[in-house]
Amino acid sequence: MRTTVGIVGAGPAGLLLARLLHTAGIDSVVLESRDRAYVEHRQRAGILEQGTVDVLRAAGAGERMDREGLRHDGIELRFDRTRHRIDFPALTGGRSVMVHAQTEVCKDLIALQLKEGHPLLFEAEALAVEDATTARPRVRYRHEGRDAVLECDYVAGCDGFWGIARRAIPERLGRTFERSYPYAWLGILADVPPSHEELVYARHDRGFALLSMRSPSVSRLYLQVPEGTDPDDWSDDAVWTELERRFETDDGWRLERGPVTQKSVTPMRSFVHEPMRHGRLFLAGDAAHIVPPTGAKGLNLAVGDVVTLARALIHRRDTGSDQLLDAYSATCLRRVWQAERFSHDMTALLHRTPDAAPFEDRLQLARLARLTSSRAAMTDLAECYTGFPLG
Amino acid sequence: MRTTVGIVGAGPAGLLLARLLHTAGIDSVVLESRDRAYVEHRQRAGILEQGTVDVLRAAGAGERMDREGLRHDGIELRFDRTRHRIDFPALTGGRSVMVHAQTEVCKDLIALQLKEGHPLLFEAEALAVEDATTARPRVRYRHEGRDAVLECDYVAGCDGFWGIARRAIPERLGRTFERSYPYAWLGILADVPPSHEELVYARHDRGFALLSMRSPSVSRLYLQVPEGTDPDDWSDDAVWTELERRFETDDGWRLERGPVTQKSVTPMRSFVHEPMRHGRLFLAGDAAHIVPPTGAKGLNLAVGDVVTLARALIHRRDTGSDQLLDAYSATCLRRVWQAERFSHDMTALLHRTPDAAPFEDRLQLARLARLTSSRAAMTDLAECYTGFPLG
Repeated sequence: MRTTVGIVGAGPAGLLLARLLHTAGIDSVVLESRDRAYVEHRQRAGILEQGTVDVLRAAGAGERMDREGLRHDGIELRFDRTRHRIDFPALTGGRSVMVHAQTEVCKDLIALQLKEGHPLLFEAEALAVEDATTARPRVRYRHEGRDAVLECDYVAGCDGFWGIARRAIPERLGRTFERSYPYAWLGILADVPPSHEELVYARHDRGFALLSMRSPSVSRLYLQVPEGTDPDDWSDDAVWTELERRFETDDGWRLERGPVTQKSVTPMRSFVHEPMRHGRLFLAGDAAHIVPPTGAKGLNLAVGDVVTLARALIHRRDTGSDQLLDAYSATCLRRVWQAERFSHDMTALLHRTPDAAPFEDRLQLARLARLTSSRAAMTDLAECYTGFPLG
Repeated sequence: MRTTVGIVGAGPAGLLLARLLHTAGIDSVVLESRDRAYVEHRQRAGILEQGTVDVLRAAGAGERMDREGLRHDGIELRFDRTRHRIDFPALTGGRSVMVHAQTEVCKDLIALQLKEGHPLLFEAEALAVEDATTARPRVRYRHEGRDAVLECDYVAGCDGFWGIARRAIPERLGRTFERSYPYAWLGILADVPPSHEELVYARHDRGFALLSMRSPSVSRLYLQVPEGTDPDDWSDDAVWTELERRFETDDGWRLERGPVTQKSVTPMRSFVHEPMRHGRLFLAGDAAHIVPPTGAKGLNLAVGDVVTLARALIHRRDTGSDQLLDAYSATCLRRVWQAERFSHDMTALLHRTPDAAPFEDRLQLARLARLTSSRAAMTDLAECYTGFPLG
């Protein structure tokens, strides 16, 4: 098989890239190792920055998002039993975010891709990207029991942190930056309307908690737990009791309980691979970088990457110039590092580190006091949360 | 001897408190263990916040400051061989800082105190604060070879980090918060006009450097060095060579060398004692808290403390109410923790930690990129640098 752009991975990065290229008249093939049901149901992020919303709309994938997504004009920071709202539009000149699950975005992009007859192969396991530095890179993959080769002009590695694309870059040419955290998130999905209409980020002496939602009738809640926690060690009742403690306020706010439909643990990691390009192989999304989920940046970074990549490929097709492709890695990394910084700092702001010195606790509270009293500091947070400029 | 307020220590906190109390008609006695020449010549901070400037003027100690001090409307952040200015008045609605050495402030306050015949005893070594929780606290001290007692209504512990006042608070009633840093500042005074008209904070792979000044003809320069460095291990030439490296830019900026008149090493420490009050003993300045010098907050915190304390003592004299005295510690600590936060974060932003992970280096650069590109982030910095509200 042969195509212009071989796309490894049908997560949001790969699917959106295929869509953006198709809209511009550039053909591609998407290879996805998992089956369709798996891709459509893995729980991931749910906060779309303004820029991401705009891109999905422009790509023709915004109809259901606009119907079902929840526009959020702020978040709440909760600490010392008090509540503080950050008002995004008032601070940023009108920007907001959209709560809409990544799984839903993926479902729509898959449906569009298949409806229009564009190649998207499920259970096609990419094995290796080869000849990345030649004019004819190839993706070797296994599909329906047979080994096959996808010949391309360009390859987009959108196959996530554990994917094979990044491995095609020789170690001596790349550099990785990493940070692990001594805690994780225990997340639940619950069939109960969210107890607050906006996200609540709570800093508590017992650890961080986050109140989020998937829809007006489905709550998504998280607890900071030690790294390596087994979700089965937590009964539903224990989860709710701990959530109630960490969200408790002096003004009588109440957390509504409901049936827990899913329970899982999300590890926390910061990771960046530099550069994001090797010859004609371009990494996008989690294949190149991971952020802890606190800043809600993972999906949005992936969107930024593929918008930058699509623009560069279109520029190349239209002008013959490699200029934007050559700039791809540096362009993306500026935005990536801002998101890494923000995600790291939001994480450090709100989580309790085991054995943290009392001095660190006081610093956290002083940061939160500043963030909720200075318009400048609040604006900085609101700008970062609603999103860095694309490209 | 007996007085209303016994003041231990003739640094800027103690001297200014005596002045503020005298202006309000409250008598005090200042005890200082060192001699006058020592107090007038120890090199300390040199950046006065707007609020500090206003207080010194109102106290009648602003004349020479206004004549000789240098008003600074910004600082420069330097990294990756490029220069970025933070414009204070433009970002804060007109606020700025004053470069004027603490030693000069102390000289003027001492002259005022002695000229007006108010008690200020040099070489009077305070030995202990006693009976702090009674209505008649006492300071035992040694002066001219004899033990003596100062009987007071109130005691102000302004005798610095190593002083004796804090020790009068039983350990079980207090809590300390500390952080040490694995580096120090090697500082020089040099008889050469400063090479830049404003302070330059440089982040370099080899470590932090700061260009400052004492006057239009005297430069004050600092290098990050390992903790425990002996200043004698650095020749003048080695200091200048290292400074040149860390300040180097792509636009041909040049550092002027000159004769080094003083060379010393300043350790870096964060420290807070809570509470700042025990009965009728009130801690102020370094006796209660230390910040690393990066944020230029030490002197300004001391001024904030004694303004708060003077106001509370005057309120008590005028109304008989202990309300402001009772609130003293909490009032000061809010401002103290903001300064601790800012000083810690400025330090972490600009210094290289030995063995820092490459991820931390990238975070530093991302923070600096944000700080020099977002008006909100710049405003936050400018507000914190020019000073938190007093009291």
